[in-house]
Amino acid sequence: MPHNDQQASCQIDFDKKDQVKKPEEISKDGSFNRQRNRFTTPFGNKPEELPVESGRYRLLWSAACPWAHRSVIVRKVLGLEEAISLGTASPMRPRLEHVDWEFSLDEHGVDPILGNRYMSEIYKNADPEYTGRPTVPVMVDTVNKQAVNNDYFKLTNYFETVWSPFHKENAPDLYPEHLRDEIDALSEVIFHDVNNGVYKCGFAHSQEAYEQAYDILFARLDALEERLSTQRFLFGDYITDSDVRLYTTLARFDAAYYSAFKTNRNLIRQFPHLWGYARDLYQTPGFGDTTNFDAIKRHYHLSITINPDKDEVKILPKGPDVSDWETAHNRQHLSNKEDKFLIQG
Amino acid sequence: MPHNDQQASCQIDFDKKDQVKKPEEISKDGSFNRQRNRFTTPFGNKPEELPVESGRYRLLWSAACPWAHRSVIVRKVLGLEEAISLGTASPMRPRLEHVDWEFSLDEHGVDPILGNRYMSEIYKNADPEYTGRPTVPVMVDTVNKQAVNNDYFKLTNYFETVWSPFHKENAPDLYPEHLRDEIDALSEVIFHDVNNGVYKCGFAHSQEAYEQAYDILFARLDALEERLSTQRFLFGDYITDSDVRLYTTLARFDAAYYSAFKTNRNLIRQFPHLWGYARDLYQTPGFGDTTNFDAIKRHYHLSITINPDKDEVKILPKGPDVSDWETAHNRQHLSNKEDKFLIQG
Repeated sequence: MPHNDQQASCQIDFDKKDQVKKPEEISKDGSFNRQRNRFTTPFGNKPEELPVESGRYRLLWSAACPWAHRSVIVRKVLGLEEAISLGTASPMRPRLEHVDWEFSLDEHGVDPILGNRYMSEIYKNADPEYTGRPTVPVMVDTVNKQAVNNDYFKLTNYFETVWSPFHKENAPDLYPEHLRDEIDALSEVIFHDVNNGVYKCGFAHSQEAYEQAYDILFARLDALEERLSTQRFLFGDYITDSDVRLYTTLARFDAAYYSAFKTNRNLIRQFPHLWGYARDLYQTPGFGDTTNFDAIKRHYHLSITINPDKDEVKILPKGPDVSDWETAHNRQHLSNKEDKFLIQG
Repeated sequence: MPHNDQQASCQIDFDKKDQVKKPEEISKDGSFNRQRNRFTTPFGNKPEELPVESGRYRLLWSAACPWAHRSVIVRKVLGLEEAISLGTASPMRPRLEHVDWEFSLDEHGVDPILGNRYMSEIYKNADPEYTGRPTVPVMVDTVNKQAVNNDYFKLTNYFETVWSPFHKENAPDLYPEHLRDEIDALSEVIFHDVNNGVYKCGFAHSQEAYEQAYDILFARLDALEERLSTQRFLFGDYITDSDVRLYTTLARFDAAYYSAFKTNRNLIRQFPHLWGYARDLYQTPGFGDTTNFDAIKRHYHLSITINPDKDEVKILPKGPDVSDWETAHNRQHLSNKEDKFLIQG
């Protein structure tokens, strides 16, 4: 697969021996390169695949993480809440020898179904030799409490296809068969230039690497702004999987990346079409109601993994004002369809 | 005088014994309080005052510093360039035992008139026992190379009044006698809530102190936005000293304070009237031509005095795009006057 810089992302580890705390994923030229995912067995119905079964799996996420957020949006839009339960790690990570996600939001600080305090436990249940980063999203088999899939790049596509027997009635088709090649191609571009592009800006260890990522990011946002000036969503009248992927970065852009990752040519609020589009999605069930700006801000501005070398005084930026996400977007006129979802079948 | 938190400001010292590097001006509650200026003898014609003489003084500034910038704008608007020469320190300060301003932009790294490498030298020439921070702006007597006045709060008023014999022909009146009480009162408010308000946000050492300063800052900006919705400048048709003071903070807001000082409810670019007003001033000779966004960004994002605890990797944010400062502001219609300056006499 072409995503050799893909890794279930919401975990960046720092080399503790290195006083400047460079991520291990920093190349010699200062650019940021994601590592690969560990658990990539697909869901399906073949013997070598993970069986699709209602009530068996638990999806673990943190509301801060854009890669996990996409799977939570799709789960909700498709009505998979009954089939796949959801566990939520804190957006804040304590300073530990090995950086981890923690279930400190839950009573007694443990996930109520799996009983684990740290994300790393379910990775070690699956592989006692596992030394990688425990990442979200991850699907956990509740029978043996083992991580079975942390392939955030494909997880929403599994939800949209082989998980269809458990979709709600009249669930939308986020991944229409006739558009899959185009959706995949666009998602690939959005991944490299936007989703991961902001991380390439924020984690660059050289001015050159940062500026290169910044230029690519804003060139792509300019192109998307243009694309969305004449159509309501990325593929026209209906929301698709690509929109979910773009949304999770847009929702974090002004609140986090603009300052914390130095993606500051302009705010998303300064792109008329992208800003209307982002609000259109935010105001759609499954999007805004799974978007937690407070968690996002705490993670990117305060969490020690993102900002390992800040001093002891942690100030959470009070802005930006997010009440404007609820304001009218007036994008209905770009479509002649009543609904923004293509209903399956 | 009521400004007990005023200090010629562009120098914040950090207690080197304190591992969290708190400024000395941090109160127990975490709030930021400026110290007093050291050299405050007024300019004038009384024996106890500094004599007003063309060619005798040199104004030292750094393009990064808002407190120094105001004096440089007024010097240029009034045509005092011949009477008062100008020396420019680098926006970047090296890591020294005692933080200082440096003349590294000049040939051989020394001011060509005064011959000093560091700002501290001219303070020590004036007072060998001087242990305070060497700050800008500072007026230096070139005869003995001594600092004679670093009272940034009053310096522009001296330029506007007792320095009038050296103003250019048809120089504007930035401090009209009938408005002085009102100008002083507004400048006082702008100082506490805006000019110094952004520093109170950025240097707060507690969440409460930060949020209090943030709320006061944006409440004041909202009030100024309202005031500027019906009149071109703060006192109507003509630019006054208060406009200079507000401008120097507005010019640094999006490029520096928004991210570096967490003043991020919104950009100045998101206030329609303040943004038009700021551009109107920027496009006025003396304002934009003394505004150096690169110096501003380097200082606030990279200089070690502002960011003492960042690690070795220094990345300069590429944004925001500043080309829009030149765009049309359309504020002429708010005034029925041809000129934006009230001509003296």
